[in-house]
Amino acid sequence: MDYFFKPKGVAVIGATANPKKGGNIIVANLTKGYTGRIYPVNPRYGEIEGLKCYPSVMDVPDPVDLAVVFVGAGMVPGVIRDCAARGIPGAMLESAGFSETGPDGAALQQETARIARDGGIRLWGPNCMGLVDVKNRSVFSTVTPSLWETMIPGSVSLIVQSGMLAGAFLIDLMSHGVMGIGKVCSIGNKMDVAECDLLEYLLADDETAVIGLYLESILDGAGFISLCRKCPKPIVVLKGGKSREGAAAAMSHTASMAGDGAVVSGALRQAGVIEADDFYQMLDYCRVLESFQDLPPGRKNRVAVMTYSGGAGIVSSDFLQHNGLALACLSPGSITRLKAVFPPWMAPANPVDLWPGILVNGTHRVYNETVKVLLADPGVDAVFAHCFAGGFDLDPDLAAMARLARSAQKPLICWISGEREAVFRFQQEALALNLPAFREVCRAVECLGVLLGYHQRKHEPAGDASAPVPPPIHGRDIPADLIDGCCGVLDERRSKAILKQAGIPVVNEARVGSPEEARAAALRFGWPVVLKGIAPGAVHKTEAGLVALHIDTPEALFRAYDLMVARVGAGGEVLLQPQLPSGLELIAGLVRDPQFGPCVMCGLGGVMTEVLNDRAFALAPLSHEEALGLIGRLKSQRLLDGFRGAPALDRNALADALVRLGALGAGFPQIREIDVNPMIVVDGRPTAVDASVIL
Amino acid sequence: MDYFFKPKGVAVIGATANPKKGGNIIVANLTKGYTGRIYPVNPRYGEIEGLKCYPSVMDVPDPVDLAVVFVGAGMVPGVIRDCAARGIPGAMLESAGFSETGPDGAALQQETARIARDGGIRLWGPNCMGLVDVKNRSVFSTVTPSLWETMIPGSVSLIVQSGMLAGAFLIDLMSHGVMGIGKVCSIGNKMDVAECDLLEYLLADDETAVIGLYLESILDGAGFISLCRKCPKPIVVLKGGKSREGAAAAMSHTASMAGDGAVVSGALRQAGVIEADDFYQMLDYCRVLESFQDLPPGRKNRVAVMTYSGGAGIVSSDFLQHNGLALACLSPGSITRLKAVFPPWMAPANPVDLWPGILVNGTHRVYNETVKVLLADPGVDAVFAHCFAGGFDLDPDLAAMARLARSAQKPLICWISGEREAVFRFQQEALALNLPAFREVCRAVECLGVLLGYHQRKHEPAGDASAPVPPPIHGRDIPADLIDGCCGVLDERRSKAILKQAGIPVVNEARVGSPEEARAAALRFGWPVVLKGIAPGAVHKTEAGLVALHIDTPEALFRAYDLMVARVGAGGEVLLQPQLPSGLELIAGLVRDPQFGPCVMCGLGGVMTEVLNDRAFALAPLSHEEALGLIGRLKSQRLLDGFRGAPALDRNALADALVRLGALGAGFPQIREIDVNPMIVVDGRPTAVDASVIL
Repeated sequence: MDYFFKPKGVAVIGATANPKKGGNIIVANLTKGYTGRIYPVNPRYGEIEGLKCYPSVMDVPDPVDLAVVFVGAGMVPGVIRDCAARGIPGAMLESAGFSETGPDGAALQQETARIARDGGIRLWGPNCMGLVDVKNRSVFSTVTPSLWETMIPGSVSLIVQSGMLAGAFLIDLMSHGVMGIGKVCSIGNKMDVAECDLLEYLLADDETAVIGLYLESILDGAGFISLCRKCPKPIVVLKGGKSREGAAAAMSHTASMAGDGAVVSGALRQAGVIEADDFYQMLDYCRVLESFQDLPPGRKNRVAVMTYSGGAGIVSSDFLQHNGLALACLSPGSITRLKAVFPPWMAPANPVDLWPGILVNGTHRVYNETVKVLLADPGVDAVFAHCFAGGFDLDPDLAAMARLARSAQKPLICWISGEREAVFRFQQEALALNLPAFREVCRAVECLGVLLGYHQRKHEPAGDASAPVPPPIHGRDIPADLIDGCCGVLDERRSKAILKQAGIPVVNEARVGSPEEARAAALRFGWPVVLKGIAPGAVHKTEAGLVALHIDTPEALFRAYDLMVARVGAGGEVLLQPQLPSGLELIAGLVRDPQFGPCVMCGLGGVMTEVLNDRAFALAPLSHEEALGLIGRLKSQRLLDGFRGAPALDRNALADALVRLGALGAGFPQIREIDVNPMIVVDGRPTAVDASVIL
Repeated sequence: MDYFFKPKGVAVIGATANPKKGGNIIVANLTKGYTGRIYPVNPRYGEIEGLKCYPSVMDVPDPVDLAVVFVGAGMVPGVIRDCAARGIPGAMLESAGFSETGPDGAALQQETARIARDGGIRLWGPNCMGLVDVKNRSVFSTVTPSLWETMIPGSVSLIVQSGMLAGAFLIDLMSHGVMGIGKVCSIGNKMDVAECDLLEYLLADDETAVIGLYLESILDGAGFISLCRKCPKPIVVLKGGKSREGAAAAMSHTASMAGDGAVVSGALRQAGVIEADDFYQMLDYCRVLESFQDLPPGRKNRVAVMTYSGGAGIVSSDFLQHNGLALACLSPGSITRLKAVFPPWMAPANPVDLWPGILVNGTHRVYNETVKVLLADPGVDAVFAHCFAGGFDLDPDLAAMARLARSAQKPLICWISGEREAVFRFQQEALALNLPAFREVCRAVECLGVLLGYHQRKHEPAGDASAPVPPPIHGRDIPADLIDGCCGVLDERRSKAILKQAGIPVVNEARVGSPEEARAAALRFGWPVVLKGIAPGAVHKTEAGLVALHIDTPEALFRAYDLMVARVGAGGEVLLQPQLPSGLELIAGLVRDPQFGPCVMCGLGGVMTEVLNDRAFALAPLSHEEALGLIGRLKSQRLLDGFRGAPALDRNALADALVRLGALGAGFPQIREIDVNPMIVVDGRPTAVDASVIL
């Protein structure tokens, strides 16, 4: 895709001499930065911005490998046809008036896409702001030069689905001076070029260290996740529209739990992607990740706080705990060294309250000495420095602090408040030193948590991405009559038979046709037993009185059997199972997401299922390691670990069942959903006690 | 306390002519705003800042009712003695060097406090920045005039425990122009005047509409909560140091659950106080509450979003859901009226994407028409407007929008991003119009949730504050031998006897001395039964094998009895209880907090107790309404409401038990903790099945 990012020549179709119009701004942007050939195209002009103007793209000489198109929507199909005929490999379509405007625009978009496909030309857009490459000053966009000319180049690149937001980000970031930016790709309607194409390009882009994405849809979920998994760079995603996903027509618990973005969050976590919820939060995550790209292995979560206010130290400690970080315990040596810069009555501790020292020894000495001691302490993994600008003579020597942090290879981040202009100057200085400075304690600590967590995961033994994924379970593994020709919700017996064939542990079961058969089965399994009635069309067995639990005598069994036969009616059948002892109840399942394909779910079951909503998703097929990771993302870890004397869950056994659920989903596209509910853990081992397979 | 806020004359003890010193800045501040008499005191000067300077406070003429003291710590006791002798009712002690510096300073502080007490003078401070009253320009502080002279007066007043933070807030707020401020009270070491004194003053202060507090300690928790309950103004509290509270030596579940600030959070919720976690978050809560003080009853949580970017609308919707707010469903009439300002292809919906309309009709018309339609819609309770400053010609007519919102009596809040200077101008204009504008979507929506929630609670039938609290349960209600002379952890039988006497439902129970007595009791209660062994000193009965459940035959009972007798050993006893059917398990209890006194706890019990950590606290004694409120604060409401066919909890019955626990705590100061665990809900009614009273 170099023709989009580094074209040798650019034709601007719809160029104009009117400086207020986008068609002029595009040319002006090119003349101010881009170093290749520029060809304005417009039959009404001979020259624009001092450049020869061509009547048609057909007249443009070589080299030209990118067309930036800014003409009325109705003219676009013809223009794209010409571009393709001219042999231009890529067009950036910045005009609006396509699918975002309703059915007519959608038809126009489809027609344009068809022309491009037939003509072998890739299309970026439409309805977008194109590309702003701050580093290379290659700006193929209608944003005005004042917007990007003074921007600070950085190595965070962004892919933004909304054109307005891309522009808004740029203006806000540029003028507030809080971070540098590499490439901003505004992708608009994603008629052809979409997030995967650009992500792939940026993954390989030497100038990009961190990638942030704002996406409203992910067209190829599995492809996107597969790219993310391979990526050695931090990726931060803000996925808009999570609250509206969900499953109005969900037929299983699994599907009903897939709402609220649980599938996309699970897939992103599985791929090591960091998820953000708000715009500046996403940008803050990106800049803290950019600031400290290479931390050595072994950095943990122990943070030293240095503050000019005891109160701010206290609040920081509260946030550290909230974000899974810990207050570092300073070594005796560090305490001794700190004592040299503090008054004798003060016993240095973490958070380090700098104020008493500053009164005696001044700001620079106390900040510098303290940061030096803290960074040198092997029990400190990162330093959080509170700074104040524009009062109290508190301006620290940021450059010295930054140097110390770089040489210690430990993150140093700042909280800055104070007088507006002084804060701005501080932020600009911090940016030049690549030290992240934040305006709120909560955001600063949150970002430190993201940074330390990212590097810890990066240095973990590479389980997730590299482990082999088992092959799909296909028709040869499952007797054909269990699935072929069926549709809708399969009954419990059939559903569990499929699971059993797939190698998932299922409770013993016998179909019994008489009281005597029932008794024989009960004697075989051992008392107590459970009787279940399978009535055609009945989905909720418990509510329909089709489950009789804790049957522990032949008499009770006979009574239950007669009742069940009456309740299931003609065409029904009766199943007998051993009653499992009570234990931890889990739920597992499979759901087919429109964007991400088959996804495996694991959660807490029983009455807790819907109350706790403790569940996690991962894309199928998944490796054993990934299944363990999925289990590890549940909130109720303490219950899994054998709470109050119960044996711990055999995580490998559960992971194996989850892997097999995923393999079923991968092998049988006709399976829409699977619910294994409950999956009861007995002596640590999970067993499917009831299940529904939905075709 | 008017002598602190509106003194007729102020003596500045430690005044100096050196403009760099605090003793000069205090005088300079007074000359620039304060309208009463000013008396610099320092034997070394005849005149300071054009004012006659007095050698001693004893020489100062009337009127003088406040001394602002800024002398070396060692001189303070003598100065306070003189002030008291001079008959000055209040002194603001801004010097440092007291308890914050260690044992010597603490001794000095104690000595000063004693002198003040003996002399009948109230002390504010020490180690504080005093008072900045922006509205009245009464500044009794060492903050420089440049800091407060240009500040915008508002009706949010602050009480800040940390002096540095008080100053930092002022500088930051003043220069960033995001909110107006009334009085800022920096209270320092709280030697005498503390949060309760100032809160009481501000409650009655006509110029204060909203009160924000940053506190590291609450000296008189019960008094503080009692003031908050009476307060008709919104109160926002940021309590620092929550993560370090907790209960290293907790002997009961109740006490171990009291960590992490659960007690203070519960007490604040009970009193209708809004809790914040970070500094600017607290200030943001205050300003949104100040902006819309009088909303009519009936405002719900339905929000209309107007945006220039579809993406920002989507992300806002996600945050609305996350904050318990809802996207308003626009009426057909509103849709029709909106169509007039949007292009025909656009179907207006909430969020309203303004951009297509702006392209056709311009920013002002589209913003104004849209806000008018949305505010007029009876299904809309509040409007969230996204604004952009400094680009795209998007500056709305804020004044018109503000007028419309005021006349509709509905909150209108803004999200603002854009070019730095334009954003600042926007914020200043919004401030002048008293429209809250936020830089992040998440914070804006969070604040809207706080505002709407506050007004909803305010208009609820006044249960909490006005309902009568039952009298404490005293010795006359409880047989003396159950408590008198005992200490430590009382055994189950004794503990439950106390609860029963207090009127809390307790499971039936018989102390049995022989197998035959056991059988007789079992026949009386009905099978199955439970046997429990009470062994002296054994706290964890289950772990010690002292609980035998599900005994359903005489044979099993005899076996269990023999075993239990052997296990309890000499001095032990055996209890027999009916086995309750399985049901929802709760935990209830009482704990005595050092700051808040007796507090009642209610939580989810069983294996869930520690995993979910779903518990809430309220100060005792509590009214029946407050107990219902406490139950309503649990997260697992769905479990309480009869989840999956179980009968719903009888909330009144549980509330009654909680009220009685509180009354026990209020009546018996020697009770340190009570644990009722589990409290099993059978047919909706809670029954104490096991309990510990700890003296």
